Amino acid sequence: MTDTENIDIKKAFAEEKLGWRGYVEWEKYPEKKELATRILNKSKFTPIPEFQFVPLPDTNPVLIGHRWKEYHEVLGLKHIVDFSWETVQKEKPDLIHLLDFPYNGETTREQLMEGKITSNKYHFIRNHGGVPDIDEDVFELEVGGLVKNPVKIPMKDLKDPSKFPQAEVTVTLQCSGTRRIEQIREYPGDGDELINAPWGEGAIGTAVYRGVPLKKVLKIACGGILPECKHLEFIGADTYFKKNNVFNYAVSVPWRKVRANEEVLLAWEMNGEPLPKIHGYPLRVVVTGHIGARSCKWLYRVNALAEPSMGPVQRQEYLYFTPQVGKQNSKYSNGFSIQQMPVSSAIIFPLDKKVIVHDGKITLKGWAYSGGGNWVQRVEVSNDGGSVWYAVNEENMTQKHYHAWRLWSIDIPTDAEGWLEFCVRTWDSSNNTEPTFVRSAWNWDLHVTSSCHRIKIYSVNRTRPETAKRLKLLEEHGEDIYNLSHPPEFSLEPLDEYLAQYRKYPREPED
Amino acid sequence: MTDTENIDIKKAFAEEKLGWRGYVEWEKYPEKKELATRILNKSKFTPIPEFQFVPLPDTNPVLIGHRWKEYHEVLGLKHIVDFSWETVQKEKPDLIHLLDFPYNGETTREQLMEGKITSNKYHFIRNHGGVPDIDEDVFELEVGGLVKNPVKIPMKDLKDPSKFPQAEVTVTLQCSGTRRIEQIREYPGDGDELINAPWGEGAIGTAVYRGVPLKKVLKIACGGILPECKHLEFIGADTYFKKNNVFNYAVSVPWRKVRANEEVLLAWEMNGEPLPKIHGYPLRVVVTGHIGARSCKWLYRVNALAEPSMGPVQRQEYLYFTPQVGKQNSKYSNGFSIQQMPVSSAIIFPLDKKVIVHDGKITLKGWAYSGGGNWVQRVEVSNDGGSVWYAVNEENMTQKHYHAWRLWSIDIPTDAEGWLEFCVRTWDSSNNTEPTFVRSAWNWDLHVTSSCHRIKIYSVNRTRPETAKRLKLLEEHGEDIYNLSHPPEFSLEPLDEYLAQYRKYPREPED
Repeated sequence: MTDTENIDIKKAFAEEKLGWRGYVEWEKYPEKKELATRILNKSKFTPIPEFQFVPLPDTNPVLIGHRWKEYHEVLGLKHIVDFSWETVQKEKPDLIHLLDFPYNGETTREQLMEGKITSNKYHFIRNHGGVPDIDEDVFELEVGGLVKNPVKIPMKDLKDPSKFPQAEVTVTLQCSGTRRIEQIREYPGDGDELINAPWGEGAIGTAVYRGVPLKKVLKIACGGILPECKHLEFIGADTYFKKNNVFNYAVSVPWRKVRANEEVLLAWEMNGEPLPKIHGYPLRVVVTGHIGARSCKWLYRVNALAEPSMGPVQRQEYLYFTPQVGKQNSKYSNGFSIQQMPVSSAIIFPLDKKVIVHDGKITLKGWAYSGGGNWVQRVEVSNDGGSVWYAVNEENMTQKHYHAWRLWSIDIPTDAEGWLEFCVRTWDSSNNTEPTFVRSAWNWDLHVTSSCHRIKIYSVNRTRPETAKRLKLLEEHGEDIYNLSHPPEFSLEPLDEYLAQYRKYPREPED
Repeated sequence: MTDTENIDIKKAFAEEKLGWRGYVEWEKYPEKKELATRILNKSKFTPIPEFQFVPLPDTNPVLIGHRWKEYHEVLGLKHIVDFSWETVQKEKPDLIHLLDFPYNGETTREQLMEGKITSNKYHFIRNHGGVPDIDEDVFELEVGGLVKNPVKIPMKDLKDPSKFPQAEVTVTLQCSGTRRIEQIREYPGDGDELINAPWGEGAIGTAVYRGVPLKKVLKIACGGILPECKHLEFIGADTYFKKNNVFNYAVSVPWRKVRANEEVLLAWEMNGEPLPKIHGYPLRVVVTGHIGARSCKWLYRVNALAEPSMGPVQRQEYLYFTPQVGKQNSKYSNGFSIQQMPVSSAIIFPLDKKVIVHDGKITLKGWAYSGGGNWVQRVEVSNDGGSVWYAVNEENMTQKHYHAWRLWSIDIPTDAEGWLEFCVRTWDSSNNTEPTFVRSAWNWDLHVTSSCHRIKIYSVNRTRPETAKRLKLLEEHGEDIYNLSHPPEFSLEPLDEYLAQYRKYPREPED
């Protein structure tokens, strides 16, 4: 955009199709992308907030996506920002709003553990752009690239079981940033324009998805793929930004993954209900065992490719670097692309830094998951930071699924009092388990926190007589062991008892 | 105080002596102490601020001693609070004001490392009460208890070298809470009415004190101690509170410590100047190798005792508990009394979480100290969290003293980039060294953080070509490696280089 350039933004970046609100087609119009870049290059944007070197705000939303909003606004797309937040308030009012735009919402602990299946209302959300609002009746899916016959399939046909065989799969999806807060607390990392959300343990959820295996669509609708096809690219109707370039959201998975029928699904139903708008209505991909980012929402095009997608999400994001790579030397080619998720787990109850009054046993609950084609075999919990491990009984775990987590619960014998470190690790069906410490798998982009999840618990063992006595005394004085750092107002020991003890065992030697 | 009690507080808690402002004598008047307790029991006080489970305020003063001020105010002693703060502003304007009352001030890093001797202006302060304002001309020291002849010694006589032989000793004093913040960050502990200040590495300092060895005073002025005497109690003119009881500040040290001439000094001079008011003017005790709390300020009475002081500071505070003792079971008799300080050290430069751009070597500086009659023999620094250790050369350490720290400096060969963990440990003259991790010596009252001090450093090694190239690129774009979490605005790799690399080493296997 030269200064004399006279652009009608509304017209330049108009919505593409009738009944598709909030969808701008970028990939077919290089001149439109160039114009957007010229406009973005001339604009100043609010810097990314610093939340890694300082404590997180205790607001809700926690972080405000000023920059991403401004990207949209300067291109005349503010209505997308507004519609997205309206959708959050309608569909996800009760999440922890970690980032307001693009929306990143985390499931709270109670909702996370409500059962094997996470309600649609409570399932976490990690979006990369605004929420488009698409009428299913006018929606059609394009399939092209290295296929025998490129096609456009109306939604009605896709959902017609006489045209395409359907499948229902129980799938755990998680952001590759799940438990990122542990890495941030250990060492800050890349900020990223989009904000690497400081997720806790709630960026994971499980649902039953209904749809058509992509393999069937390629075969039935397109007559199969060409031999050169090695990757399937998914393009979503949301708008994505990277270093002042603009894109439709695009990712890809290998053909070998798609070959396994139910592992790459084109889904329109989630837990028996139509996909919520914020989850990709009318159509999304569900890729089992991979990071959530591959399960493209608002899918409108599948491209059969010889190589992985060149889209920035696939090529420049979700890279796993060795720990000595960072701002001084990271490139797109020296981290590997994160596709499959490793085995990992989390303790959801009790909360970190809680005081637990108990009778010699402490109950812990959490989730355990493995991606990449593995399922959860065994969960083990340690009450000493990772030396002694107690295995969870099968009867205290939810049922096995090929592509879903298991929730677990265990009562751990606990004699010791004071601060104890509990941690959990899971073994999967390929006998993988988790690295012991956060540092063991720390990486610059703060992805895949697969190390043993740890919590600090202040143990108060009421079966010990001295402790029982103190608890009674606290109660008599209207005080509280749970308010741990608050000093009791009463004397901790009568003078005569103290002196008797002191005189029996004096502070200094006698000679 | 019954509701009908009609007390003239000004009269009840009047200052004791002409020329001694802010000094109330409590220990000789049980009825005055009882009255104070009745008043305190009937009053409501602001609770201790919660600063352990939440981030520390970034204000200065950091914490406000509402409760301790209110204790003074309700007894009509507000002028002590006011005078103390005036004194801080006059004598210690440049410290980090960790707690405004009783005043706890920490030395900043630059001032801490300015040399072997800390200037009076910059030496840390940990007070337990307000600052009294005493005229030296009317001051006299009482010495009593289990001595042959109890005496009162005017200051003029005490300072007369023809009456008492003088000594000058270089002494490091530290609060037993030095580096407490590390314990708090690991696990919160006891809050304490007085507030256990969240000290960093600056609650330590070194000065040359001039005075008279207490041993000489006891011998020359009192004709010696009685055989039953095992402890010497020091009483200060400041007012101390504990569980609604009121005291003069009182602590004690064993006679065996006093026997070693220059190890317990009655001092009036600090670095060649009269003691600053905030350091105990006109007279204080200096006990070498012990926690600072034993070096009683505004000393007005020495008591020769058969047992340690019954004062709360000696009996109920500065206790060292085993890690499984806490609010549920701590007593005054199940922690041992902290007298002597162990070997410990700290890295002062660079700061924790700093980005360091270097040419293969990183310079670290800090202090090392051992109490309890030991001196510093060797300092070792690790650049890998505590496996490989580099010893500091003798020429890079300040001179040895029996009772003082050594400052040190080292250039550590550092090849690796990214986040590294440096730590320091010291070996003393009895071959003691430090526990490796904070947890190794964590204790409920958060005293004596003697574990290896650790910092996280983001290493950027400019001798590596890829790094040099990136630094140049950042500079060309007006960006900054030091602003670590801020993402660069430019592309990290040209597309052709990326593709060449990708095609040489594809993401997935070929078969």
